Amino acid sequence: MNPVKVGILGLGTVGCGTVNVLLRNMEEISRRAGRSIEISHAVVRDLEVKRDCPLETIKLDTEPMALVNLPEVQIVVELIGGTGLAYEGVKQAIKNRKHVITANKALIALHGNELFKLAQENGVIIAFEAAVGGGIPIIKSVREGLSANRIQWLAGIINGTTNFILTEMKEKGRDFSAVLAEAQELGYAEADPTFDIEGVDAAHKLTILASIAFGIPLQFNKVFTEGISTIEQLDVLYATELGYNIKHLGIARRARKGIELRVHPTLIPKARLIANVNGVMNAALVMADALGPTLYYGAGAGAEATASAVVADIIDVVRTMTVDPDNRVPHLAFQPDSIVDLPILAMDEIETSYYLRASVIDKPGVLAQITSILAEHNISIEAFTQKDSRRMDKDDVHVVILTHKIREANMNKSIAKIENLPEVNGKLVKIRMEHLNR
Amino acid sequence: MNPVKVGILGLGTVGCGTVNVLLRNMEEISRRAGRSIEISHAVVRDLEVKRDCPLETIKLDTEPMALVNLPEVQIVVELIGGTGLAYEGVKQAIKNRKHVITANKALIALHGNELFKLAQENGVIIAFEAAVGGGIPIIKSVREGLSANRIQWLAGIINGTTNFILTEMKEKGRDFSAVLAEAQELGYAEADPTFDIEGVDAAHKLTILASIAFGIPLQFNKVFTEGISTIEQLDVLYATELGYNIKHLGIARRARKGIELRVHPTLIPKARLIANVNGVMNAALVMADALGPTLYYGAGAGAEATASAVVADIIDVVRTMTVDPDNRVPHLAFQPDSIVDLPILAMDEIETSYYLRASVIDKPGVLAQITSILAEHNISIEAFTQKDSRRMDKDDVHVVILTHKIREANMNKSIAKIENLPEVNGKLVKIRMEHLNR
Repeated sequence: MNPVKVGILGLGTVGCGTVNVLLRNMEEISRRAGRSIEISHAVVRDLEVKRDCPLETIKLDTEPMALVNLPEVQIVVELIGGTGLAYEGVKQAIKNRKHVITANKALIALHGNELFKLAQENGVIIAFEAAVGGGIPIIKSVREGLSANRIQWLAGIINGTTNFILTEMKEKGRDFSAVLAEAQELGYAEADPTFDIEGVDAAHKLTILASIAFGIPLQFNKVFTEGISTIEQLDVLYATELGYNIKHLGIARRARKGIELRVHPTLIPKARLIANVNGVMNAALVMADALGPTLYYGAGAGAEATASAVVADIIDVVRTMTVDPDNRVPHLAFQPDSIVDLPILAMDEIETSYYLRASVIDKPGVLAQITSILAEHNISIEAFTQKDSRRMDKDDVHVVILTHKIREANMNKSIAKIENLPEVNGKLVKIRMEHLNR
Repeated sequence: MNPVKVGILGLGTVGCGTVNVLLRNMEEISRRAGRSIEISHAVVRDLEVKRDCPLETIKLDTEPMALVNLPEVQIVVELIGGTGLAYEGVKQAIKNRKHVITANKALIALHGNELFKLAQENGVIIAFEAAVGGGIPIIKSVREGLSANRIQWLAGIINGTTNFILTEMKEKGRDFSAVLAEAQELGYAEADPTFDIEGVDAAHKLTILASIAFGIPLQFNKVFTEGISTIEQLDVLYATELGYNIKHLGIARRARKGIELRVHPTLIPKARLIANVNGVMNAALVMADALGPTLYYGAGAGAEATASAVVADIIDVVRTMTVDPDNRVPHLAFQPDSIVDLPILAMDEIETSYYLRASVIDKPGVLAQITSILAEHNISIEAFTQKDSRRMDKDDVHVVILTHKIREANMNKSIAKIENLPEVNGKLVKIRMEHLNR
């Protein structure tokens, strides 16, 4: 059989990684796929830039629309990123009845509903394994491996930058800003780290995971997103002493009244495997009714790790491009006419446990006041500890409380009341806590 | 579309689990699969036995061959186990051009080469996700998710019984035999536990994983297999003190001169995620050239967990049964004509690190003798510790040594020499050690 012709939009890190993996493993890949795959064309912004992959056999151009209009290109791999040119290129490729592979979480999270519909109308596939968890086959596992299950919840460490920072803060006792600076030097964090640090990237990925887990539309704008820039070293330390690690999680849960979609720092018991996923590594824990918990761990970024998912998608597309579209795995795991728009819960409505830290003046009665406010709001306490403040110039102590599950609205009301106590200095620190055991 | 008709051979734990999962999640499953699945027929040994699943809609019979000969049954699910009746039934089903789904690792490990060939000739699929790691989609992940990679090695906790026993020995300081008795009471171990305890079950699963990882034929008879019945509490304790957990691993590795295939107790550094997979849970760690390490964790057994994989396989088969067989994912990940019979290394040829424990008479010069024997065989030492013997009636001490990597033949020669020293009592304890970091 003729090799399948693939065109790549963008030959940056992942683009060149894809070229390198395909060339290096061509024999192994052909043994699996049963036919060979050829990157025949690529589009770059600047033809003069030196790149870390051989380009002799690839026709280069600078015009994305030229590539997606080429009749001989059967599969378009979009690695431009963002939602401008990438969106236009992908849309045109689909209209030209080309299959599309993308690593672009923003594109899928923000425009997936429209693009999948367009792909369906044109009988083509959009594959996006590389958009979540880099090379980890998490999309495939949830979409196909867990297809017998009603999925109850999932929780993922789906951003390597924040996981690296939290790991360093814990293991080396360093402050957020110092670790962030190092992460930027190492290339783990962008010059403008907002997307990673404030959880936008994780929210894109959570949007996708929640959709394929529950059969709901992609709805990025409904994800509650809280970053890690407010996490203090002190709280990392206290959490550790209490038997918890703080991880930046994306959580999607099927609750009684709707779906929870939230990205925020989270205390997790150290005994959970996912609490021990460190450095830049990613992992997703999925709770399913028949299967119980499964965890998928691996590199969430990097040139060749991401390329691994892109190339696996190419092989999948090659296998299914000739198949009756009705027999293909649906883009969002559920048949398009079976996607159900379940309500997404407002953050006030979610139920979880909490880590609270208050700075209080060290005098009798303060603890009784705090605990009675919590009791008034039906908040029961799992653990309680008092710490000397590390600020030597102040005459206060830290009260650290772990609560049982309660509605966030109740928690916020009681926090406001506690902050109003004259003996309490400043704001309370509130970090959500998940036991992830059932 | 009409529902797909499925016949089940065997309505034991997993068979009933499959019926229950399919019925309970029928709506969710239909939303994904795009058509419904009906278990129309089943074969049981005894029609009178009460079963934990509703049977009203299923035609029961006691004759496997009757079911596999029914024209209306399109997919046969084999859950009889063993390689007698199961083998005959599956063979006949394939000859009748029915697709087969099985959870039977022994059947695949021992007869897979023949059965896959027969299936290819008849244009049908044999799906076997449930044969390894219960419901964890490990076959799918390695076969499809990692298809871009040259896989270097994999290491799996692929038997829940042995993992439960080793976990209990470590966490509760109990002896092997006491924990085994408890595991039998809890139903985690069979009345005759040999298959699990001595590693036969794990060797079946490793045979399958190695085949799909490296594109080699199934060759169970070449797997080196060592069980956990000789592991003493003392060594679990010493390993822990040195920063390692002992796990019963199946390991397949691409070495310079061939493939290593081995099942044995193994020290793993505690910092590795897989070292913290406890109780009856399973996990597989796969090292691939582009992707790096990935880990897949979940329930390796149980009625519904296994049923999860069986039903996912049914959905996959329904999707691909109408597809040109050349476009399907090959049974063993590689195209049948691309399976290469790489040499499997004899155990003498493998290279690994070792934990050694010797009981020696506590007098000057003994350690020097031992370490010089190791040095003669080019074995370098990573760590070394001396322990008081726990046997109060004896005047000996325990010498515990961790070595760097060395060929097993060298290690065995040096052990024989050490055992010949007059100051050394009895046999050395030798447990292999893997760092699993690259």
